[in-house]
Amino acid sequence: MASHQIPIHQLTSLLGEWRGPSSDYTSLAERVRLMVIDGRIKAGARLPSERVMAEHLGISRTTVNSALAELRASGYVRSRQGSGSVLDIPGRTGDLPIPQAGDMLDLSRATSAAVPGVHAAAERALRWLPARLTTDGYELSGLPALRETLADRYTASGVPTTPENIVVTSGSAGAISLIARTLLAPGDRVIVETPGYPHSNDAFRSAGARLLPTIVDGDLGWDADEFAGTVERALPTLAYVMPDFHNPTSRSMSDAVRTTIVDVASRHGTVIVSDETTAELDIDRSEATLPLAVYDTHGNTVISVGSASKTMWGGLRVGWVRASSTIIDRLVAARFSFDLGAAVMDQLITSELFDGFDEVIGYRQEIHRASRDALANALARHLPTAHLHPVEGGVAAWVRFDAPVSSALTVAARRRGLLIGAGPWFGLSGEFERNIRVPITATPDAIERAVAILADAMIETARPGREAGRSVL
Amino acid sequence: MASHQIPIHQLTSLLGEWRGPSSDYTSLAERVRLMVIDGRIKAGARLPSERVMAEHLGISRTTVNSALAELRASGYVRSRQGSGSVLDIPGRTGDLPIPQAGDMLDLSRATSAAVPGVHAAAERALRWLPARLTTDGYELSGLPALRETLADRYTASGVPTTPENIVVTSGSAGAISLIARTLLAPGDRVIVETPGYPHSNDAFRSAGARLLPTIVDGDLGWDADEFAGTVERALPTLAYVMPDFHNPTSRSMSDAVRTTIVDVASRHGTVIVSDETTAELDIDRSEATLPLAVYDTHGNTVISVGSASKTMWGGLRVGWVRASSTIIDRLVAARFSFDLGAAVMDQLITSELFDGFDEVIGYRQEIHRASRDALANALARHLPTAHLHPVEGGVAAWVRFDAPVSSALTVAARRRGLLIGAGPWFGLSGEFERNIRVPITATPDAIERAVAILADAMIETARPGREAGRSVL
Repeated sequence: MASHQIPIHQLTSLLGEWRGPSSDYTSLAERVRLMVIDGRIKAGARLPSERVMAEHLGISRTTVNSALAELRASGYVRSRQGSGSVLDIPGRTGDLPIPQAGDMLDLSRATSAAVPGVHAAAERALRWLPARLTTDGYELSGLPALRETLADRYTASGVPTTPENIVVTSGSAGAISLIARTLLAPGDRVIVETPGYPHSNDAFRSAGARLLPTIVDGDLGWDADEFAGTVERALPTLAYVMPDFHNPTSRSMSDAVRTTIVDVASRHGTVIVSDETTAELDIDRSEATLPLAVYDTHGNTVISVGSASKTMWGGLRVGWVRASSTIIDRLVAARFSFDLGAAVMDQLITSELFDGFDEVIGYRQEIHRASRDALANALARHLPTAHLHPVEGGVAAWVRFDAPVSSALTVAARRRGLLIGAGPWFGLSGEFERNIRVPITATPDAIERAVAILADAMIETARPGREAGRSVL
Repeated sequence: MASHQIPIHQLTSLLGEWRGPSSDYTSLAERVRLMVIDGRIKAGARLPSERVMAEHLGISRTTVNSALAELRASGYVRSRQGSGSVLDIPGRTGDLPIPQAGDMLDLSRATSAAVPGVHAAAERALRWLPARLTTDGYELSGLPALRETLADRYTASGVPTTPENIVVTSGSAGAISLIARTLLAPGDRVIVETPGYPHSNDAFRSAGARLLPTIVDGDLGWDADEFAGTVERALPTLAYVMPDFHNPTSRSMSDAVRTTIVDVASRHGTVIVSDETTAELDIDRSEATLPLAVYDTHGNTVISVGSASKTMWGGLRVGWVRASSTIIDRLVAARFSFDLGAAVMDQLITSELFDGFDEVIGYRQEIHRASRDALANALARHLPTAHLHPVEGGVAAWVRFDAPVSSALTVAARRRGLLIGAGPWFGLSGEFERNIRVPITATPDAIERAVAILADAMIETARPGREAGRSVL
């Protein structure tokens, strides 16, 4: 099989505002190089043809050709007869020695080890397994006992719910891709947050949707009027939001924002997918909030998504959807050609862990609080010009620099053994070059080391022209 | 949210050759009614508008209107102001009392309870859990130990394989939908078997593919020349086959067919997805076969799909894909927005069950052999005119009647407490009205009771005109 060709629309979207202070061909080459190094484009993928790139980027074929020549010279592109320009990483040339993944301090994922008690819960879950083994094990809606527990938890939080409103999925990723695949048709419009969670964006794109951004400001949060305007103008099928401890900004929606967006969505037939996978990971939020579904008086505007992965353990592939029974029925029917249900043993373990769930949350809360405080201290010491947006819960902190250095900084940090998500990872088209996400799921110690590395990398990054052919974008 | 509208192309495809001996409006109404009753269309779904149906079915609006009137009179359609014709099941009217699912003899799925030893394997797996709990649990490629076991098993079967050629998925359903979503673009063509596995067809349709049939004859198997002609003419991106104990016919490909289809696919860049989820469930196949990937000398034409669900237990959501490392890399990358990996505990249990896998197969073999023999005996006794195609392994038997009675027969059987898959379930457009699938995963006792019910139902079905407004199609 030939190498995978990057579709031109994906490339232009990833490139974003690629033009910089250098010549166009140098800026283009540099941007592509950064994207290969930080993994936004995989080595081994094939670029579109020179003609197509020139046409869609609005530059001459000569410029494209020069950029490719530069990438080829630095080892980031190899050209093969008849198979176009294939991206590469010049690992062995010494130009950019990349530490092995095992040696890296990995803060690229906002994930962590299991909470205590998972093994004991698994042991207890074994008692319930024999009864399940007499069935064929395909639980397309989820195990009744778990669905009942989840329904009770929603009801207690202010959203009256019965098991018929619940389907258990393979994690929240499985929930979102099932929703995208079932409720969207190609060409449908979907509102997504920017910055936002890139893998959900991919799930919607994969269903053929067109994404419309709604901004989440690191200090101010959502702009409900902008959201309403987009709904009225574009009549999107879905809107995907994280109303509590949004990833990556940690913002939560105010009561007023919740009221407005559910109201406008309801009036225009837009369904809101409310991703609440980290909603319970409160540290010290000042304002009490109600789940978004509370605002959905008719019950057919809000779909809630939850998960055991961020609170209990990522290795438990258990998530869920709460929605009207009509929507749940459609999702369950679609699972025959999707995944045939979530793992039975994981569902039994999750049920057990809901007994004592307050301790699970308490454990996470303590770590996240310590890590957030460590981050604030380390930034004040090592990177005093960086701005830390307020973090009241969730899994991530959003940091802003006073210059658009994010991609270059993360590349320089990588050479120093730190993997971390550059701001543009969380945008739709290369924006957020002044931002970086720091997961507070990491230990305080790891966060202190990471900030020290970033400070060191910043010195290199802030010195323009130090390395030939490198431009700060 | 309004009820789900059935797309017109899906409706026409499901209707197939709907015209019968009765008038067009009666035949159309009857066909729709059968599809609602046996679940091919869900009650609650909305039909396209009269105008659209008339246009695409090539009949007058008056005919459509009369058919709808008939369905409305019998309770199968309710019309609501402004929301069109919504399908319904008149459960309470006594016209067609439908037994509750719990009371039914369910032979609609070719699934079964767990093999012995799953609980013990889960207990042993707990020993390996603590080490996994120190990680974040996201295993996008699968646990290394399981991938190594799978690679060794492929190598031993004649297909040299390393762990880099393996990704562990959420069952084979998760494998096939991941493949469809990752390797297909809208409008791509995919060869599928007919009869074949309907949920795989749905996975390909869901990715926007156009399906091209290749016939599997219940006695003769595949027509390699027909397959080759379709590849040459249509240049499909994928071809989906079950070369060993095909579901539902139980046929296996001969050496000559394997050679021809891999050769023609390789020459035209078509990738063959070889679904081998039941390939090890041999009862007494006369001809020894080699895995399809053995015929793939360059290693980039055949993708093999396997699963623990049909051999060990469906509640273990563990499947896998074996392919070139290039394809595996693409599948793994796509999982970030799909399901983030398979359940860790299930992977540990599956690894344990591969120690002693011969016993797992031996256990299934014994049941399937007894059930197959019970089926042959029961048919000879109760339905002597039915033809049982040879069953040498797998999970299903394919039975042919001497008249196109399948849909009507399964409806009559349902009233007598038996759920079973009508032939058209396994076709692309309503064909196989002379066939029925009997799963040999059911116990011999269940199969004997099912055949007795079918024989009783056949008496009613074979008497044309007994029930007003019912036509045998």
